[in-house]
Amino acid sequence: MRSALAGIFPPIPTTFDSSTGDVDARAIASNVSRLMTNGLAGVLALGSNGEAGLLDDAEGDLVVAAARDAVPRDRWLLVGVGRESTRATVAAARRAAKLGADAVLVRPPSYYKTDMTPEALIGHYRQVADASPIPVVLYNLPGPTGIVLTVPIVSALAEHANVAGVKETSPELERLGQWVTLRGGSFPVLCGWAPVVYPALMAGAAGGILAVANVLPEQCVALYEHTRAGRHAEALAAQRALTRIARLVSSVHGIAGLKTALDLVGYRGGAVRSPLLPVSDRVRDEITQALQKARGH
Amino acid sequence: MRSALAGIFPPIPTTFDSSTGDVDARAIASNVSRLMTNGLAGVLALGSNGEAGLLDDAEGDLVVAAARDAVPRDRWLLVGVGRESTRATVAAARRAAKLGADAVLVRPPSYYKTDMTPEALIGHYRQVADASPIPVVLYNLPGPTGIVLTVPIVSALAEHANVAGVKETSPELERLGQWVTLRGGSFPVLCGWAPVVYPALMAGAAGGILAVANVLPEQCVALYEHTRAGRHAEALAAQRALTRIARLVSSVHGIAGLKTALDLVGYRGGAVRSPLLPVSDRVRDEITQALQKARGH
Amino acid sequence: MRSALAGIFPPIPTTFDSSTGDVDARAIASNVSRLMTNGLAGVLALGSNGEAGLLDDAEGDLVVAAARDAVPRDRWLLVGVGRESTRATVAAARRAAKLGADAVLVRPPSYYKTDMTPEALIGHYRQVADASPIPVVLYNLPGPTGIVLTVPIVSALAEHANVAGVKETSPELERLGQWVTLRGGSFPVLCGWAPVVYPALMAGAAGGILAVANVLPEQCVALYEHTRAGRHAEALAAQRALTRIARLVSSVHGIAGLKTALDLVGYRGGAVRSPLLPVSDRVRDEITQALQKARGH
Amino acid sequence: MRSALAGIFPPIPTTFDSSTGDVDARAIASNVSRLMTNGLAGVLALGSNGEAGLLDDAEGDLVVAAARDAVPRDRWLLVGVGRESTRATVAAARRAAKLGADAVLVRPPSYYKTDMTPEALIGHYRQVADASPIPVVLYNLPGPTGIVLTVPIVSALAEHANVAGVKETSPELERLGQWVTLRGGSFPVLCGWAPVVYPALMAGAAGGILAVANVLPEQCVALYEHTRAGRHAEALAAQRALTRIARLVSSVHGIAGLKTALDLVGYRGGAVRSPLLPVSDRVRDEITQALQKARGH
Repeated sequence: MRSALAGIFPPIPTTFDSSTGDVDARAIASNVSRLMTNGLAGVLALGSNGEAGLLDDAEGDLVVAAARDAVPRDRWLLVGVGRESTRATVAAARRAAKLGADAVLVRPPSYYKTDMTPEALIGHYRQVADASPIPVVLYNLPGPTGIVLTVPIVSALAEHANVAGVKETSPELERLGQWVTLRGGSFPVLCGWAPVVYPALMAGAAGGILAVANVLPEQCVALYEHTRAGRHAEALAAQRALTRIARLVSSVHGIAGLKTALDLVGYRGGAVRSPLLPVSDRVRDEITQALQKARGH
Repeated sequence: MRSALAGIFPPIPTTFDSSTGDVDARAIASNVSRLMTNGLAGVLALGSNGEAGLLDDAEGDLVVAAARDAVPRDRWLLVGVGRESTRATVAAARRAAKLGADAVLVRPPSYYKTDMTPEALIGHYRQVADASPIPVVLYNLPGPTGIVLTVPIVSALAEHANVAGVKETSPELERLGQWVTLRGGSFPVLCGWAPVVYPALMAGAAGGILAVANVLPEQCVALYEHTRAGRHAEALAAQRALTRIARLVSSVHGIAGLKTALDLVGYRGGAVRSPLLPVSDRVRDEITQALQKARGH
Repeated sequence: MRSALAGIFPPIPTTFDSSTGDVDARAIASNVSRLMTNGLAGVLALGSNGEAGLLDDAEGDLVVAAARDAVPRDRWLLVGVGRESTRATVAAARRAAKLGADAVLVRPPSYYKTDMTPEALIGHYRQVADASPIPVVLYNLPGPTGIVLTVPIVSALAEHANVAGVKETSPELERLGQWVTLRGGSFPVLCGWAPVVYPALMAGAAGGILAVANVLPEQCVALYEHTRAGRHAEALAAQRALTRIARLVSSVHGIAGLKTALDLVGYRGGAVRSPLLPVSDRVRDEITQALQKARGH
Repeated sequence: MRSALAGIFPPIPTTFDSSTGDVDARAIASNVSRLMTNGLAGVLALGSNGEAGLLDDAEGDLVVAAARDAVPRDRWLLVGVGRESTRATVAAARRAAKLGADAVLVRPPSYYKTDMTPEALIGHYRQVADASPIPVVLYNLPGPTGIVLTVPIVSALAEHANVAGVKETSPELERLGQWVTLRGGSFPVLCGWAPVVYPALMAGAAGGILAVANVLPEQCVALYEHTRAGRHAEALAAQRALTRIARLVSSVHGIAGLKTALDLVGYRGGAVRSPLLPVSDRVRDEITQALQKARGH
């Protein structure tokens, strides 16, 4: 049986075939299978790092199916299904459920920013949670969306039985520190910003969804386990070692940086889809050196 | 023959069937046919005001086909086709062309904000312009996207033979005033912010794509013609009369405000799609009164 | 007698003694005297371009006194007196009045941003207008302050008998277009963003406070007079010629760019005060060439 | 002898005489004396919470002198001296040193935002650190200033012998987590955002400068000591108890909220200076109830 929503989850990238540019389901399954040999709690497919916004629905389904095959039933397959319209979000959640996802992660609609009042956001999420066959994890990512799921919004939504938790993807820990007190302290909050994951865990987060966990899964799991066991010096050291790599494969060089790092450590990263651009040779060298240092070579 | 890209264009809303919530192609065709009895230069389908982000591809095709039937061949059917990925944008441009669109309007990708460097944006637009069977109009809308098409970016793209112009949807006129000098002053720039359309025309804009032109097409055309004819006092008076309505049907009350106003003046507006919310009764009254005043009752 | 608040005003820079770094009152008086041989409506001392925030009160008084000597009584000496506290703003307004200023320009307090509600801003400006011996011009400059004087705020303040107008320093013309309708259309609005001054005048602005008017006063006055006389082609050509220089001496290279340009055209610009930095040699060359082109060499 | 820069510091408010509105030095000394009976590491005078921007230099000196009398020599008197110009900042640092301050806290200049390049900021701080007779603590507060002291900027400045540490006033812990590794891990970083102080300490912060420490000094010190002693459950419980009060007396209701709370717990808070506004009766009630709950009544 699957345990509570906690621990470390890599948001898996979507590997493309190098000649056609289409989704390479086999490469994705291979990546996930190898990841599952570590102590990860599961994976997130079709997150921001999965280039979800650059895929069509059929491509997304291929990714989910490939991931499902490779994720054991006792771990979590989370799937990103956020869309601009409520109806498309619901449809995507249903498709993910049919393909075997365990929960869906739903970013807020953000194109019509000035219309995204608390009332509109709460209404959207309630409709999605009502209709989704599987639990809904809320997803706050102010950077790409320009929208903030505030404490009152998340508090209101935490009352819904089909809302399973929330992910915070920012370096800010104030909201997270308040969300963890919801449902008498049992509301799962996942940190999506690797350079602050240790302090987030100390503030009460249940785990993390971290791009760097694709590249250095063991180190991420070690950080988590050190923290849970009260080995704070070790946890802080692990945090610091992860931070530099985390920055290179997310905030600084984005998905191209992540895929480059994956190629370097033996996973299948490959190319990003346009309009994203590949990293320069200089950045590739920078990542190579940082990884060598982080992995103790 | 169709004249240059100039004059007033309403960005048509997408009317939904009140019982099913599906696209109501007949209502859209009816709206457009009636609009075309005014001196408008054409219409924009699937713009932000068309709830484009809330439609799937098949729905978008229905809207384009309905509009094409109702727009005479000597006027412009512009179609919004911007997507996050280059490949999806190209596919949408091809579909629009096949359905008879005269040009496509392409908003910048914006989800991966920090990756949208000038190089990435120029690369995206060049690929789209290379592949699109019909001319491409660039679309700068910093509010919803958080991305700015700067003067250097637009200057670089204006060199592409299949780039037909640019739309600026902001109250800022500095960029617009520089863009109009491109191609020796012949590069068409369309203003998308009704409260500044008269000064934009004086700064060299070729026309406007204005939500309020759905509601008060004659007054928008009159503003344009007064300006062209050098009747500045009349143009400024028209601007002021339009501004209040323009705010109610775009910046303040959004698409729900626009659709409410359309219902009030005899077009078919109807409901917005979730997560957008309908306007309150109070707002409906405010719009009713403002329209009565603007139309001289 | 002084005419209405209209026309072109340069916001004069504060020249420093090259050896001591102290205010050089003689250089300032010399600059202003020469400026006054053009058709300018007056000057603004201690504006943002005057490095007002980098001066202490006694230095500011020297600047005002020097400017007063050089500005004929039938033209305007405007003085920037905005401070963070209401009491300091009132004190500065009283000092400016005693030194002969004709009106004060008051930027909004901005350090305690989240406290600067409409109520707080209206309260601040009302107290200043009540206490100032000379008229108060409101000053909206969202860039440096992060505060916006909205249409409702300015509408409320336009009812105060000692409020003489408002300056808008942004490329946005929507607010400006609404403010000009206050007091039955007689409320003076001054544009502070040179690249949009011609469209601003067409939208109803009474004039402009323009950094570039220090460097190219005749051209700025010509733009204004062309506009007033309905010579729109000439006005637009003047706008375009000014825009490149305007950008170099304000938005792109700031006060250091402005002072460099002044040195190049024979005024006394000199050094900026730290933490501002001088322009590089490359930028100096760029400004030199742009000025030569703009002045027809 | 004074220990390292660590522990809890309240940023003391500036009490004004209720009839004249002038600085009430006696009330300030009384507040500080009472605070010093708790285990606080010292105080910050003339911080943002001290309404520093609303005081003139002479008033600031009164505050510093009053605080100095009340802070024992073995604890820290930090004084905020940031100004827009380098020369005024240096002058203020010298005055603070003469009045007995132990270190100065220097916010970045922010009015000329676009000119505040890394080069300009580093130059400013180096000049201040060169000239200040006492150590300089850097101060990052993106909210009020719109300026960010990035990791590279702080890294460069940490090499200066007269730079003593940095304060981070935001809910973000990424920068803080990198700064704590400077100088081989001995660079003191102080957290200025109470709702994240416990995770900040876990990430390596040396202490906190917290508005709420004026109101609930014992609880803040207890949080700090629990953390240092590895009593994590107690520390997290203390964090949660503090967060609600912290929000009421800083981010939500600002300095007026802080002074209201001080009055309620027997310190001398009093009125804020205009343009700041007093809290409403409703907010006073909210604060009253929250304090009663927090203090166990």
